[in-house]
Amino acid sequence: MSIALNTEERDLQEALRRYLDAEVAPLVADYERRREFPWDLLGGLYEFGYVRGAVAREHGGDEVSAMAQAVLMEEAGRCWGSLRTTVNVQGMVAMLLSRAGTDAQRARFLDPMLAASRFGWFALTEAEAGSDAGALRCTGRRDGDSFVLNGRKIYITNALRADFGILLARQLDEDGNDRGVSAFLVDAAESPYGVHDIAHMPVRSTTSCELVFDDVRIPAGNLLGEPGSGFGLAMAAVNQGRLNMAMGAVGLSQACLEAAVRFSRERRQFGKSLAEFQLVQQMVVDIAVGTQTARLLGYDAARVLDAGGDGRYECSMAKYYCGETAGRSATLALQVHGGAGLMEEFPVERYFRDAREATIPEGTSQIQVLQMGKHLLGRSALR
Amino acid sequence: MSIALNTEERDLQEALRRYLDAEVAPLVADYERRREFPWDLLGGLYEFGYVRGAVAREHGGDEVSAMAQAVLMEEAGRCWGSLRTTVNVQGMVAMLLSRAGTDAQRARFLDPMLAASRFGWFALTEAEAGSDAGALRCTGRRDGDSFVLNGRKIYITNALRADFGILLARQLDEDGNDRGVSAFLVDAAESPYGVHDIAHMPVRSTTSCELVFDDVRIPAGNLLGEPGSGFGLAMAAVNQGRLNMAMGAVGLSQACLEAAVRFSRERRQFGKSLAEFQLVQQMVVDIAVGTQTARLLGYDAARVLDAGGDGRYECSMAKYYCGETAGRSATLALQVHGGAGLMEEFPVERYFRDAREATIPEGTSQIQVLQMGKHLLGRSALR
Amino acid sequence: MSIALNTEERDLQEALRRYLDAEVAPLVADYERRREFPWDLLGGLYEFGYVRGAVAREHGGDEVSAMAQAVLMEEAGRCWGSLRTTVNVQGMVAMLLSRAGTDAQRARFLDPMLAASRFGWFALTEAEAGSDAGALRCTGRRDGDSFVLNGRKIYITNALRADFGILLARQLDEDGNDRGVSAFLVDAAESPYGVHDIAHMPVRSTTSCELVFDDVRIPAGNLLGEPGSGFGLAMAAVNQGRLNMAMGAVGLSQACLEAAVRFSRERRQFGKSLAEFQLVQQMVVDIAVGTQTARLLGYDAARVLDAGGDGRYECSMAKYYCGETAGRSATLALQVHGGAGLMEEFPVERYFRDAREATIPEGTSQIQVLQMGKHLLGRSALR
Amino acid sequence: MSIALNTEERDLQEALRRYLDAEVAPLVADYERRREFPWDLLGGLYEFGYVRGAVAREHGGDEVSAMAQAVLMEEAGRCWGSLRTTVNVQGMVAMLLSRAGTDAQRARFLDPMLAASRFGWFALTEAEAGSDAGALRCTGRRDGDSFVLNGRKIYITNALRADFGILLARQLDEDGNDRGVSAFLVDAAESPYGVHDIAHMPVRSTTSCELVFDDVRIPAGNLLGEPGSGFGLAMAAVNQGRLNMAMGAVGLSQACLEAAVRFSRERRQFGKSLAEFQLVQQMVVDIAVGTQTARLLGYDAARVLDAGGDGRYECSMAKYYCGETAGRSATLALQVHGGAGLMEEFPVERYFRDAREATIPEGTSQIQVLQMGKHLLGRSALR
Repeated sequence: MSIALNTEERDLQEALRRYLDAEVAPLVADYERRREFPWDLLGGLYEFGYVRGAVAREHGGDEVSAMAQAVLMEEAGRCWGSLRTTVNVQGMVAMLLSRAGTDAQRARFLDPMLAASRFGWFALTEAEAGSDAGALRCTGRRDGDSFVLNGRKIYITNALRADFGILLARQLDEDGNDRGVSAFLVDAAESPYGVHDIAHMPVRSTTSCELVFDDVRIPAGNLLGEPGSGFGLAMAAVNQGRLNMAMGAVGLSQACLEAAVRFSRERRQFGKSLAEFQLVQQMVVDIAVGTQTARLLGYDAARVLDAGGDGRYECSMAKYYCGETAGRSATLALQVHGGAGLMEEFPVERYFRDAREATIPEGTSQIQVLQMGKHLLGRSALR
Repeated sequence: MSIALNTEERDLQEALRRYLDAEVAPLVADYERRREFPWDLLGGLYEFGYVRGAVAREHGGDEVSAMAQAVLMEEAGRCWGSLRTTVNVQGMVAMLLSRAGTDAQRARFLDPMLAASRFGWFALTEAEAGSDAGALRCTGRRDGDSFVLNGRKIYITNALRADFGILLARQLDEDGNDRGVSAFLVDAAESPYGVHDIAHMPVRSTTSCELVFDDVRIPAGNLLGEPGSGFGLAMAAVNQGRLNMAMGAVGLSQACLEAAVRFSRERRQFGKSLAEFQLVQQMVVDIAVGTQTARLLGYDAARVLDAGGDGRYECSMAKYYCGETAGRSATLALQVHGGAGLMEEFPVERYFRDAREATIPEGTSQIQVLQMGKHLLGRSALR
Repeated sequence: MSIALNTEERDLQEALRRYLDAEVAPLVADYERRREFPWDLLGGLYEFGYVRGAVAREHGGDEVSAMAQAVLMEEAGRCWGSLRTTVNVQGMVAMLLSRAGTDAQRARFLDPMLAASRFGWFALTEAEAGSDAGALRCTGRRDGDSFVLNGRKIYITNALRADFGILLARQLDEDGNDRGVSAFLVDAAESPYGVHDIAHMPVRSTTSCELVFDDVRIPAGNLLGEPGSGFGLAMAAVNQGRLNMAMGAVGLSQACLEAAVRFSRERRQFGKSLAEFQLVQQMVVDIAVGTQTARLLGYDAARVLDAGGDGRYECSMAKYYCGETAGRSATLALQVHGGAGLMEEFPVERYFRDAREATIPEGTSQIQVLQMGKHLLGRSALR
Repeated sequence: MSIALNTEERDLQEALRRYLDAEVAPLVADYERRREFPWDLLGGLYEFGYVRGAVAREHGGDEVSAMAQAVLMEEAGRCWGSLRTTVNVQGMVAMLLSRAGTDAQRARFLDPMLAASRFGWFALTEAEAGSDAGALRCTGRRDGDSFVLNGRKIYITNALRADFGILLARQLDEDGNDRGVSAFLVDAAESPYGVHDIAHMPVRSTTSCELVFDDVRIPAGNLLGEPGSGFGLAMAAVNQGRLNMAMGAVGLSQACLEAAVRFSRERRQFGKSLAEFQLVQQMVVDIAVGTQTARLLGYDAARVLDAGGDGRYECSMAKYYCGETAGRSATLALQVHGGAGLMEEFPVERYFRDAREATIPEGTSQIQVLQMGKHLLGRSALR
């Protein structure tokens, strides 16, 4: 446990780790193999602050600090990438509903979310618009009491299972005038849309879906927030989203460290345990150092947010460094395992696949570099 | 095409690449998804020198140069990791039969191999003996006209499909005296043994099996080579085995380069093609430089072998560098793809998983370092 | 200023940085060129806690926290490597006198040190005993009321200028019995010894001396601490010594960052400032990320020490990571400067040379790895 | 000796290495300490092909192959960075005189160069125009039978010692019309100009000068080549210049390897030679692998040039990779030496400083990346 945490934060971390190790970890391998997710477990986890922590107390949430949120994500990442991804998205949807939803919208969507009885998706990415939100092509056109949605979204986590979602699309007036990007609530039962999983390498117990909107009609009351406020909403979540990814990556690195330590102490070669070879120690140490520096960087960003700082630069740095570090940690941990590292019977092959996600969503490493570069140098090199 | 190749070698490379691009590449994604392998394609590939190239002309083979063999493995690796792995193992089994087999053994096992009608496995690795061959526990005990085999082997490529195999085990006299490690031919039809696939991450169209020998009886005539010559046989193949892995890794890097170039020219972000961003160019260039240095190193090792040099150091260096480079190339190529890189619809996620194999079998990167270190410094740091 | 510091620590950092920027920084280039050091400046610096901070209040010192000490070393490293090295050694000598000195020894050696009127060296390293203190060959043999010193020490900082020093040597009885390694106080005026500078690359305003003891006689009362306690004394300083090096390296990284930012904003190429090139931003960002992770790691180790933790592992990690990071930061900062980076008119060539020291003294990076490896894995791989 | 060389090339390499080891290597440390260069040694070296190799036979040169030139530069780099830099510049000046000089110009400048009795400089770089030749501000304005030169050049190798030089400057008509960049021959005796050394870190036995032209008048006949052909001339030398730097860097890496092997076999720690530690073997091996891959890449580029290929991409890759590799090799070799590596009594501190030059002149690593990126991707990311 890190000296960087106070007693309360450490207690949360310990209790949560015990719970995850006991209740969730034993299930992971089997769910991953079947590419399924134990949705009924989520309610128990929300007790620790997942999802509810991102929601204001007045709306039924726990409103936890950024540092507590960091601990939550670190432990989720240490246990199971698919879990971390899932609670991350649920938390983001809940937070947006809490911030921008009307009473009616919160009653319909947020309250059941907090009870873990409904689940949502968040859809920003399009094929030609990854980090470039300005290039969105999806549209929501006003037509009487409805909006008519058109376009496609990709890489939308868990959309196959979720009951509703928040869609970012260009809002058009009835006469086609562009009102800017807005957020729309889409209820699958009310407004059926196309959705299918895109086969993917990491986080196998999630789906990463394509959503297809082909004249999908939603009630006008499903506009979330003000017209044209979609980007603002997304940006309000960007720091937390990046820090969530970063801390999940720290947890993954920690899992890699534990796996490498365990295996190298047990496995023998040339009459010694692997742990006695200097080259193995170098690999284990490099994982440990990467993990610890990444952790401290993520905690520091959380402290900045909790102190009311802007935090954009710090969250960007955490996303970049923790993500890249997770990739290195997983590569090294797999290598420590030798041939066993390629087999599904050990968790490192999962860590290796899951770590690859850490450098891409919520802004690739390259995007983070350019944002930090702009902060440091006062000049954009992006365009 | 590299200036390091002569005309004949370049012709081989071009013809083979054309064939693989036309006949094999279009099938890969589907076979990998189904985790199956098109065994009936192998005959056509043997025409280019695969497998037959490792066998003496007097035994029906093509006896190709190490450089031609390097080109064969490079192109297989560029096209499909599961294919490269498969022809690599078949070639090694065929070579051992050619070098050490009796006429009867060659007639029974080698001739149908060259006709692509029988396939073999090669079993050295045990759970506690990866690169440390001295620690083998499998035994073949003489009992009248038979040997009785006991023990377990792991990570044995394609043993589920193969008809027979070469087992390295400690040979025991009837009275239990240790005769050293010998090679035994085991025919699955004649001497049934346990075999099951171990679920694994890379090269999905191969199996990576555990073999279980529980009092499996084989005819005494199935001893391959002299008693106690098993290590010598394995060592005779070690240079070629490492260079095969190395050149396969070069081909994989080349495939990563081509994928990254293609994607970054096509995909647009922020109003430009990805190819116009300096940070993307840096990644593509690093793949290109890694690929080219790896290629030249592998070719150089092949030239040393063809010139009659010992080649141990050079093949070790090629295995080390080309393997590590393939890992970096695949990581970078995936990153160039962003979110698309995580999806199975693009080949880079396969490259990323397959590349991880390049640093482990045939001696991990760490084992290669220690062998090179001993060569350079005149002192072993292994024990 | 980092959120990881409290108000008092931040005030110290700001005041000290202002002072160093105003009073010391303008002198550095000239002193380095002449390979001289402004010894009369030290008194003013001791006011901030240098040297005095390592000494108990009852002995006239300031007894600062490990975190304040970390800030002191960070700022010294940011300003001038030769200064950091100098105050580091003075602080270590003062601390040992405070911990183990008799009243008489403190009056003679420590009090004038705190007044910046006398300066000391600390001599552990020998040609065949770098990190392996057990191999020491220097001896101090009892002869009546004296000890007679023999042997050679190398790489002893500032011994040319210092008035006295602490020598670690094997203590021998009159009859030659080995009493273990002890610490001896050697006063240059009283007991002349050979000393000469060994020309060296980094920290040009220090000397890195060879000391030659050829039947050098010192009073028996100059034994510092108990017989055989020399290693214990040295080990008592090892954590602080490593953390001092680590934080100096963080300061150096910070200086590299500032130099790279400044230069890349000012220098133009191809019609743009360097700062507008993505590849330059990548380099600047990598320095920034390395610096910040190194800083947080060093601060964390200081917090562990201040909380009474053992801190061995944390200080080892800080020494390793901060040292390696400084090397990378300096290499990148120099590269950002292009041809100008090779010239003495810019400070980066000095940073580049000085950074190389960060990975070697107080235990090389490799020694740190093996110490961390032993901590993590419970097994030594050193012997 | 590499299998990549033919017999003749290997003979050259062996003879040259023997000569340099015997005649030059013993002098290096002393000359470097004094920052002087043994100009009278050059004549003997020209016998092997230095400088003369770059000149057509009809003009008194040896016209060696690009591969022989590569070997020459590799061996110079292995022996002494200051030597390599010096012969590189002399060779470039001689080549330009051979290609573009009139009979009179060759008689006056080239013939004595080939006799090692005159030495020249080559001046392209300006403060605001490193790799961006289009930004040159120096001018040569026609005034009757003269050109009047104005402007400043920086980082001009050995200009303090040289007798004349080639200046690239914007050619202006008498009425100020810009005729493009031209090359001007400037004889120091005839047309005195300002020159002073800029103190620099690497290659201490060279000067790296600022040249100041303040209405310096040269005869109109000193225009070298056609008006406006200056860039073309410089570009004609760019491949060879880059490959020369690259191969010098390979030689430097080789020297690092030899130093690291030698030291780690001799120096003992913890009762073993350093060579017996796995972490030391890892460092030595990484130098060896880097050196060999760099060498093969440089040789391959030379073969492409000798085969009449364009070679731009290959020389750029060689410059990039060999330069970066030399930096890593020197850093590792120094680290193998521990404290000794920081001292001038061992050559690695010189290698460490000299290696830093390998990534900057003739186009920084970043410039090479962007040129390779353009080649690979068909799009420039430079502007």
